[in-house]
This record gives sequence, C-alpha cells and structure tokens, in this order.
Amino acid sequence: MAYMKISKRGMSVPASPIRKLIPLAEQAKKRGVHVYHLNIGQPDIETPPEFWQAINNYSKKVLAYGNSQGLADYLERLASYYKRYGLDVSPNEIIVTTGGSEAIIFAMTIICEPGDELIVFEPFYTNYNGFAVQAGINLVPITTQAESGFHIPRANVIEKTITKKTKGILYCNPNNPTGTVYTKDEIERLKDIVIKHNLFLLADEVYREFIYEGDHISVISLDGIRDRAIMLDSISKRFSACGARIGNLVTKNREVYQSALHLGQARLCSPTLEQVGASAVYELDNKYFKKMMDEYRRRRDVVYEGLMNIDGVVCIKPDGAFYAMAKLPVDSAEKFTAFMLTDFNYNGKTVMVAPGPGFYASKGKGQNECRIAYVLNVGDLKDAMNVFKKGIEAYNSR
Amino acid sequence: MAYMKISKRGMSVPASPIRKLIPLAEQAKKRGVHVYHLNIGQPDIETPPEFWQAINNYSKKVLAYGNSQGLADYLERLASYYKRYGLDVSPNEIIVTTGGSEAIIFAMTIICEPGDELIVFEPFYTNYNGFAVQAGINLVPITTQAESGFHIPRANVIEKTITKKTKGILYCNPNNPTGTVYTKDEIERLKDIVIKHNLFLLADEVYREFIYEGDHISVISLDGIRDRAIMLDSISKRFSACGARIGNLVTKNREVYQSALHLGQARLCSPTLEQVGASAVYELDNKYFKKMMDEYRRRRDVVYEGLMNIDGVVCIKPDGAFYAMAKLPVDSAEKFTAFMLTDFNYNGKTVMVAPGPGFYASKGKGQNECRIAYVLNVGDLKDAMNVFKKGIEAYNSR
Repeated sequence: MAYMKISKRGMSVPASPIRKLIPLAEQAKKRGVHVYHLNIGQPDIETPPEFWQAINNYSKKVLAYGNSQGLADYLERLASYYKRYGLDVSPNEIIVTTGGSEAIIFAMTIICEPGDELIVFEPFYTNYNGFAVQAGINLVPITTQAESGFHIPRANVIEKTITKKTKGILYCNPNNPTGTVYTKDEIERLKDIVIKHNLFLLADEVYREFIYEGDHISVISLDGIRDRAIMLDSISKRFSACGARIGNLVTKNREVYQSALHLGQARLCSPTLEQVGASAVYELDNKYFKKMMDEYRRRRDVVYEGLMNIDGVVCIKPDGAFYAMAKLPVDSAEKFTAFMLTDFNYNGKTVMVAPGPGFYASKGKGQNECRIAYVLNVGDLKDAMNVFKKGIEAYNSR
Repeated sequence: MAYMKISKRGMSVPASPIRKLIPLAEQAKKRGVHVYHLNIGQPDIETPPEFWQAINNYSKKVLAYGNSQGLADYLERLASYYKRYGLDVSPNEIIVTTGGSEAIIFAMTIICEPGDELIVFEPFYTNYNGFAVQAGINLVPITTQAESGFHIPRANVIEKTITKKTKGILYCNPNNPTGTVYTKDEIERLKDIVIKHNLFLLADEVYREFIYEGDHISVISLDGIRDRAIMLDSISKRFSACGARIGNLVTKNREVYQSALHLGQARLCSPTLEQVGASAVYELDNKYFKKMMDEYRRRRDVVYEGLMNIDGVVCIKPDGAFYAMAKLPVDSAEKFTAFMLTDFNYNGKTVMVAPGPGFYASKGKGQNECRIAYVLNVGDLKDAMNVFKKGIEAYNSR
C-alpha cells in the first residue's frame, strides 16, 4: 500500500511567504551577520504594562472555559472602545475570536459555500490565502498598482470580476501590505457595489489607529449596509500583543452573529487570560495611541526617505499601518531577498524584507516588489535603509 | 433588497446542545435555586500553581508571535511527556494548536476534501459536528449502545459504512461522552480496518490519564500505521486549564505535518503565554495525575452508584474520562432536563445534565439518554445524585 496521501486542499495550503526564508536568516545569523527584520509585522513596541498587570492579578484558581462569544466584561469594554470612534456597536454585536485570523475564517465560512468567491485587492495580506483554502473558497484578485499608491480601481473594473459565486468583497484598511488608507470616496464606491450586487462587505480594520494622513472610515460607520458589513479586528498591532491571539468580529446581521456564535461554541472559547489582559488595555486613553502613532510616523518617514534615496524605486508615501510596499529596481524580489541573506552584508549587517509575489494571487505579479515593515526604532531603521540601498547596488552589480 | 442571507453551511452550524439550555439554568438561579452543573466538562480542580507561576514570571516586554508550530521549549516538553508513556514522538512531529478543537479542524481539513466523510461512533463529542461543518465534511455515525458500554461493533458493521468518500475514522479514547476506554482488541480492529481500506485513523486522546480500569492504548503506539495515525491532544482536562486553549496534533506523516504547519502559519501562532504555562505543568510528575485520578475515581463511583440507585437506568460502569452516559427512565431527556431547570427543585436544589440527542448524528437517537460530567467534589456529587433521583421521580409523576 502506498504512503498515505492527504487531500488536495491539504496540499494546497501555502507556506507563509513571509516566514519561508527564515532558515536563510538563521544561517546568516550563524555566520555572525546582524539581520534587520523588516519582513514580519512584529512590532518592537512594549505591550502596555496594564496588560501584564491584569493577567498577574487574575485571582481565580481554575482557568475555566469562558463564554463562547467572549468574556462579558471584555465585550462591554470593546463596545466602549468603538463608541470613542463614533461607531455604534453593542456588546451583542461582537464575537471575540482567537486572533483576527479566526474572525476572518469565521466570516468566510459563514457567508460562502465551498467554491464561492470573495473579491480582494492585490497585493493583500498573504494569510488570506491560507484562510481561503481552509474555508474552501476562492479569492478573486483585482490588481492595484504601486504607481497609484495601491488605491482601488473604478467601479466598473471591480464589477467585471463579479460572478454568480461572488459573495462579498474583503479589504484591509489601513492596508497590509501597502500602507494605503482608503478615502471616503473609495469606501463609498465599495458600499454602492455591494448594495447593487447583493454582496457582503468585509473590512479588516486591525490597523485602525495607524493613520498618518487622512481619516479612517470604518465599515461600521456606513449607512445602508448594516446587514452587509462585517468588521474584523484584533489587539495584536494596536497593543503590540501579537502573541495574545485575541481578535473579534463585529456584525449587525443577526444571522451572521448567530452563525459566528455557533462556530465559537464548537471551539468553546478564546483564551481567557488574554481577554483579561486585553480588557485592561482597552481602558488606555487616546494618549497611548497618540504617542505610538508619533513614533510610527517618524519610522514611516525614515523608510520612505530611505526608499526615495534609491534610484528606480516606486513607492507612493504610505498613509497608514506600518508597511510600505515598494517596487524595486531588481529583476526578482525573491532572488534579491535571498541574496541579501546568503551573499551580502554591509559592515556585518543585512536586511530581510518580504518578497512581493506572496502578496499576490495572480501568478507573476509583484515580482519586483517587496513589503517593508517598519517595526524597528528610528536609529535602526535609518541604518537598515542604508544597508538596504547598498544591498540593491551590490545585487545589481553581481 | 431582501435582508442579506448567509450561506447554507453558515446556517447549519449547530448551537452547542451542552450550552443551549444555559438560559434556563440562569433563570433557575435567579429564582434562588441552586443548580448542580453536571452538563459541561469544566472541572473544578485547581489549575496547578506552576501554571500561574510560569506566566507571572514571564519577563519579556513584548508579547510577540511565537513559532507557528509551537514554542521550541514547549515542543521538547511535550515530546518528553509522551516518552513517559512509551510513545516515540519527536518535537518535529508535533504541531501546537489553539485547543484540541483546532487540532481536529486541521486534521479534518488536511485529510478530507469538502464533501468527504469521516466515520465516528455515536454518541460522540458534540462539537465534532461544528468542526465538520466548518471543514465542509460529513460525519458518518455508527451507533453504539448503552447496554454494551458503548463499545465499538464488529469489523463488518464498521466496514459497511465505508464509501469512496471515506477518508478516516475518528474516535475519542477514553471517550467523551460515554467514559468508555477501548480495549486493545478494539483499537487493533480499527487499525486493521484503516490498513485494509486505506484510511487515516484519528484519535482524540485528551483524557489519556483519566483511566480507572484497564489500560490506555494510544494510536501512536500502534505498529504498521505510522503514516495513518493522527493524535489529537489538549491540556484542558489534564491540567484543568480549559480556558488556556492549548492543544496539539501529533503525526509521523510528513505531508500531514507540513500541511498542518502551513495552516498554522496562516493563523500565525497559538497563544504564547499559555504555552509558557503549559510547558511548566508538563514538568509535573505522575504523582500529580495519581492524586487527581484517585479523586475522579471516587467521583465516578458516586455517580455510578447514584445511577444504579434509580430504577430503570441503564449504564455500564464507565472506565475513564469524567463522564457517564446513561439511559434514563424518561420519555425525553431534553424535556426532562428543561423540567429540572424550570419546574423542579428539591430542598432548593436541582441538577443540570446534557441531553443525549446532542451527542448523536442520527436523528431520533439518544432521546432518553443524558451525559453526566462528574466535575464536582464528592459531597456535592452525592447530593446532586440524590436530587437527580428525586427529579426523575417528580418528572414521571407529573
């Protein structure tokens, strides 16, 4: 009997393109090369002390199952947080999830049958691919361009991709990987399309506070699509607590809510202690965000100036999140990224970025693009961008 | 435009039958009635102090993403734990998951295409239903009987249910909800079937230590199916840490491992802090389990004697886990359970159990059965079983 085979979908779950070059980075470190990690959205900002204190003060003796929809206190706290942004969200319109990841998988499962389609704008958050395989659905990409700041195209370009299987549009605002903040006009365009074509509108808003220019328009603030809007959220970036795995889904559609609750009941609950920590940090006032955004804005400026200092780079200054997606003067961002880890260092240092193709569903797109996550302090970032420039020069003069 | 509809599969995720009567319990409590909760597998045993200490001693300032396969230290600790039971498991054959729940969803997704089938023995852990809907697969139930201690039937009965879509057999040992511990003969029977019919064998072994009679035969100990065996595990019951959401999957099949790793990469990681806590409790020696099992054995005896004290109850003494599945002298366990919460109390007290039908996939099965979780101390359990007996008498003399 042959070796036991797994399913086609099991085979088709992609390896993380952000993580797959990590062995090369480890080898570089073994050779004594310092690697600036700009490849992954893991901030260096300290998790607020209030998070740790709340967990250390937890006094129950049994770490029991919590409610499947989330701890009652935490749901209240989340609703208050949304009110600060003028968003009318009740605790019973929120399901706490295990990371924003689970919120996305739940939403895909709830609105799509296997084989159904969601429209996404590429480049997009690469893990949407894995979630889509898990949920058995197809992502239909609409390509956006570095030259136009990765803003979304006209309505008719979007509408051309709608089929009988299309169940919704999924977008991320502020955007990972591009840093784009969508304008009111763009969000209204999506709203009109989902009404016209009877679709859901799924908004990944985990970078809500990370805005350096312009305003954030939440999907929950839109009139006329209360039953179509699903917001996906997480504490990971907002409170620099990526390892907590606490996210949530917001919906005013009672069927979506009930179904999410039932999916939540099957897996019982999200981590109890981490919800206690999350509840404490949502008490922090806007000064916390202001200080963090000032820091990230400085970083954004360093990265952008660094990129503009390299001949042939195309990048419109990103307005939000903590990423820049740049078109580089190289033949292949994947080869270049590998070269930086295997064949290059400048004064004993190199830079790791995330190659572009992993953020595209269309084959062959993003070949000369990369995502840069500005998750290091300004001093390190300045040095990293200098090393990066030297690396491009070295790569092109091999 | 009509109200926005969700998918058929979104509609078909079942509400938890264990949790759906909770509002009735809450109303009973509001009326001042004390409710003994024997409906949910939430132990009252304290989470070991080592778990809390490890988390309180965590000294990193940033709660960062961990490795997608699990923290390296924790994987080592798990492998050592399995070695204690003579199970040859390497750290690189383990994927840490967010609860045993995620391990099951991953396994279903990896071995089945949408529409494929897994054989299960009913009554089974009710949340397998929700996971199956999420993974888009069908559970094919084989009914087992209270009269024969819910042991599994002869090979030809199992083989009759195998179709072209069957990809594996999923069983839970020791069993939730029945408390059955499968014999070596039964496990070997399953092994022979999966070899003969080219299937995977999935074993949910989260109650490994909860054995009061007989021995536990792990799927990992079986010769000849190293590429077919997938073990699903969790710290929830073993260390009374249900709210931690730390489970894991074990496989020696490299394709299954790679696919699970990729699914893991998509959702990034399981909770970091909880893995640190879990790592500490796996250092506890077997004295910890011995003490806990002595306590649970006493509880098992109280529940079993209480049941035998009620005329017309059918229950073979359960050998493991912390459940008894009993056939009751009532017309409907669901009506009876609701009656206990709405229309009955004995000296101001009542009992909540989990009605049988929620543990069956076959319609109409388990109507007069219930699952009793013995998760209270011996004194409370004795009183609860007395109240339970009075409740059955009251229900039948309405």
